Amino acid sequence: MSTGLTRVRSRIIMTVQNAVAARLIALDWGTSNLRATLLGEGGVVLDARAAAEGVMAVREGRFEDVLQALVGDWIAAHGCNLVASGMIGSRQGWREAPYLDCPATPAQAARSLVRVDLARGTLGVALHIVPGLRVFGADGEFDVMRGEETQIWGADLAPGQTCILPGTHAKWVQVGEGGRIESFLTFMTGELYAVLTQHSILGRLMQFGSSSPADFERGVRLGLAEYRQATHILFAVRTAGLTDRVPPQGLPDYLSGLLLGIEIGSVLSTARGAMGTVTLLGDAALVARYVTALGLAGIDAQAAPADATTRGQWRIAAAAGLTDR
Amino acid sequence: MSTGLTRVRSRIIMTVQNAVAARLIALDWGTSNLRATLLGEGGVVLDARAAAEGVMAVREGRFEDVLQALVGDWIAAHGCNLVASGMIGSRQGWREAPYLDCPATPAQAARSLVRVDLARGTLGVALHIVPGLRVFGADGEFDVMRGEETQIWGADLAPGQTCILPGTHAKWVQVGEGGRIESFLTFMTGELYAVLTQHSILGRLMQFGSSSPADFERGVRLGLAEYRQATHILFAVRTAGLTDRVPPQGLPDYLSGLLLGIEIGSVLSTARGAMGTVTLLGDAALVARYVTALGLAGIDAQAAPADATTRGQWRIAAAAGLTDR
Repeated sequence: MSTGLTRVRSRIIMTVQNAVAARLIALDWGTSNLRATLLGEGGVVLDARAAAEGVMAVREGRFEDVLQALVGDWIAAHGCNLVASGMIGSRQGWREAPYLDCPATPAQAARSLVRVDLARGTLGVALHIVPGLRVFGADGEFDVMRGEETQIWGADLAPGQTCILPGTHAKWVQVGEGGRIESFLTFMTGELYAVLTQHSILGRLMQFGSSSPADFERGVRLGLAEYRQATHILFAVRTAGLTDRVPPQGLPDYLSGLLLGIEIGSVLSTARGAMGTVTLLGDAALVARYVTALGLAGIDAQAAPADATTRGQWRIAAAAGLTDR
Repeated sequence: MSTGLTRVRSRIIMTVQNAVAARLIALDWGTSNLRATLLGEGGVVLDARAAAEGVMAVREGRFEDVLQALVGDWIAAHGCNLVASGMIGSRQGWREAPYLDCPATPAQAARSLVRVDLARGTLGVALHIVPGLRVFGADGEFDVMRGEETQIWGADLAPGQTCILPGTHAKWVQVGEGGRIESFLTFMTGELYAVLTQHSILGRLMQFGSSSPADFERGVRLGLAEYRQATHILFAVRTAGLTDRVPPQGLPDYLSGLLLGIEIGSVLSTARGAMGTVTLLGDAALVARYVTALGLAGIDAQAAPADATTRGQWRIAAAAGLTDR
């Protein structure tokens, strides 16, 4: 099973790793990637590894094989518990962890961890999966997240903030007292960008590889103005190419800006637009795009520290008493 | 080049074909298909054939080879002109026919045909490509069509009507005096349905093959209510599956209804919502979906006769004096 695993050792913060006792193995196991972090007392990072073995890449439910291939030596050497957040707790994952309903706190998540015993592990330790969150929206439909809740709980957000997590399925999250997650909205912005560039007529005239801030801004402004006709205005990416109003190398950023403008315009149009301070959490390049787009809508936003996931995992595990041995 | 051609002979209305002189070969040459009709005096249909040789399937610009393989015998036997509408006049087609600006009439199109001489044809006859239409929208962007203008001009629509042409890129068209096309809006509804079912996470939980009118209706109602947050509410197709509110076999129709509801809600939200009588033109199954969805929005709609394209082609060719020999 080690074939195909890409091991990345990064940020070995403690140079003499064995000098500090390991307390927890924290797994961020999403759709596309598995990131593992070895944590010591107080949540200090001792070691980190990653593999391109996301939930969708694991065949025939062989999750433990993938886990052992990446961090089997940590499990054998340290005898500490494992905590995992992300799509690993979905129906397509290792074990389904039922959604917690919002509002939801880290303490509730700690009480709702789903325990998975390992076939090859130290007696008394196990893998504990963090549940995702569910909210029943003002639109009469459920919305869901898995993994982002742990990231938010690690980010030390002040009450009343709106936290945006850009990505395949971007989340806009209302945060209350003590990190409580009050409600949230998902936008399919990232996935729409991917499928429209790769599989629709909008990609036909595009030339990839360059950045075009002016076309991005133009797209954002169009999306902010025309979000009420989203499935019409997306066609402007085709016509802007056909009529030479945007050059082929500017079309990808024009679409990206348009989708962000539609997303931001949509949120501002509702009562949910009363959003307080806005904090962005995620990949630096994506966060920068959102800061620009939000600025064009007159909204100041700031980026939160990037290591929030690991801190969230430590907090939940500590609250569940899993970091004591 | 005849390999791979699917010849379909249909509706031979004149039993003794050679008893009536052929006046025109009309080609409906779109992205996916090529449909050819042999027309006699007054536009009467003498013969019809089709091939799965749309513009995107023709390699290395070998359009004449494809044409000759399908109707070379007609060209040799009848010595009449050819008229073509659709994507054949696009940048990816045989010869680019520059867009006519709206408002646009069939007489203007007849004066703007783009002539293509055939390498193998009768002296004095040629292929004439109908230009597409362009409109500068209230949103500050261009919109375009190719082929639909000819269909509309064949449909005998009364002034003041709104004509909807469902499909990959659905069109909402305002019709004026004498079939003049005043303006139009494109919605990417059909293509979004295709890419989201085939390539996005929304397709993952879907089971195809059954029809579910109740889930379609539920999707329409959600789209009509939440079109202002289109890129958010599409995610409800995922959550409705995850939370078992819509069964796997109902999810395709739920998404279809949602996209139609978003399209209709978007149009009704603008001044362009003052639309008069609504006529639908196109594939019968798609037209039926639109009639249902429009009904849920309180709009009566009726279907127009299906053979509009050929009649539109005849009218344009006759106005251009191409049907005299």
